Amino acid sequence: MLGKFIVFEGGEGAGKTTQLNLVNEWLSWSGWTNRIKAHIQGDYSPVLTTREPGGTILGKGIRKLLLDVTATGNEAIDERAELLLFAADRAQHVSSCLLPHLQHGSLVLCDRYTDSTIAYQGYGRALDLTLIHQLNQIATQGLESDLTFWLDIDAESGLARTHNREQDPEIESDRMEANEISFHQRLRQGFTDLSRQYAERIVRIEAQQPNTVVAQQIQESFEPYLQKWYP
Amino acid sequence: MLGKFIVFEGGEGAGKTTQLNLVNEWLSWSGWTNRIKAHIQGDYSPVLTTREPGGTILGKGIRKLLLDVTATGNEAIDERAELLLFAADRAQHVSSCLLPHLQHGSLVLCDRYTDSTIAYQGYGRALDLTLIHQLNQIATQGLESDLTFWLDIDAESGLARTHNREQDPEIESDRMEANEISFHQRLRQGFTDLSRQYAERIVRIEAQQPNTVVAQQIQESFEPYLQKWYP
Repeated sequence: MLGKFIVFEGGEGAGKTTQLNLVNEWLSWSGWTNRIKAHIQGDYSPVLTTREPGGTILGKGIRKLLLDVTATGNEAIDERAELLLFAADRAQHVSSCLLPHLQHGSLVLCDRYTDSTIAYQGYGRALDLTLIHQLNQIATQGLESDLTFWLDIDAESGLARTHNREQDPEIESDRMEANEISFHQRLRQGFTDLSRQYAERIVRIEAQQPNTVVAQQIQESFEPYLQKWYP
Repeated sequence: MLGKFIVFEGGEGAGKTTQLNLVNEWLSWSGWTNRIKAHIQGDYSPVLTTREPGGTILGKGIRKLLLDVTATGNEAIDERAELLLFAADRAQHVSSCLLPHLQHGSLVLCDRYTDSTIAYQGYGRALDLTLIHQLNQIATQGLESDLTFWLDIDAESGLARTHNREQDPEIESDRMEANEISFHQRLRQGFTDLSRQYAERIVRIEAQQPNTVVAQQIQESFEPYLQKWYP
């Protein structure tokens, strides 16, 4: 694969979206974006920012069904249906967005990927991990991240942060945030286990610190990779 | 399971929806619905008519994404994403509609179920059948039909019929109907193979005949089952 695939993971209120945008800005400001441009084939952007769920047109529809409590009225979403919807979103995202960009040399910055499904549905909802791995395999066609920043924050602080932030304009009330605190504690355990299991690609960042400090630490961790990839 | 699960299968224009409604009317008129009422526990209807995709509130959202070509603009839906969306619709339908009704004694008449996925995605789109069976297993929790009426019509006649019928008001232009003729021929082969493999539950009905004749043949095939189930 010509491009590189960078993922931002973490629980609610960890600051993934903020940090992803700060990294994007820093890549441009520090000249990396320009350097990546030399590796691009065809009409693709050197740096792409995207997210799951919702990184495609189909995905935006799925995202609304998944996250907006008002989308299904009083009907509770079955846990298997939820898992399959995330997988459908991912299959579309991988095939119509991630793979084409990576094959043409883009550096992709993605807000959530497979680790979120393992943490949220596997640890949070206690769904069968073998099943989740199977679905991830189907949806990703084997595509794994080159580098994952796990923004780690304790469940209470993360949820407190979400109450102060701007809401996603497409989502009226977020079903994931509404889960009880023990759910968020379990999914943090999920990220902890994943970061041990995949230590070669997952970098833990202490996300309880001010945004500028977090951004600085991400840049310091990221730079050696960039120097290796774009010497 | 206290209730019974009847499925109507077939390609485009086979008349599933029409025949399902005629059976529902006939059950009521001939007294079977009343007889089933005696077996119902709680506040459930003796006969439920439903469909896939779209048998739940979540499912109606998924149905629109799946069938309406306008829902995703110019973005083509990835075949794996499509398969996973059908599975998500089914998981929700089984857990929040089919199982509760069947557990309380309802006779369920359902427009499409797992055989459609095997025929459309397996034979039509040539996706891996093992994968489809795995997803069906996850989504259905093992629920199989007690009796399936396969309304068989050749691809050309079926598609010709769809041009004369009333459109689903929620779907502007149907993505499945828009597939080329060879796709519809392959899925008919799928139903043919399934009817041999599961001869004990699949009854083939010649659907090229007038609706009243088809309805008569369904009733004649159905009656012995009803007499056995509700003596």
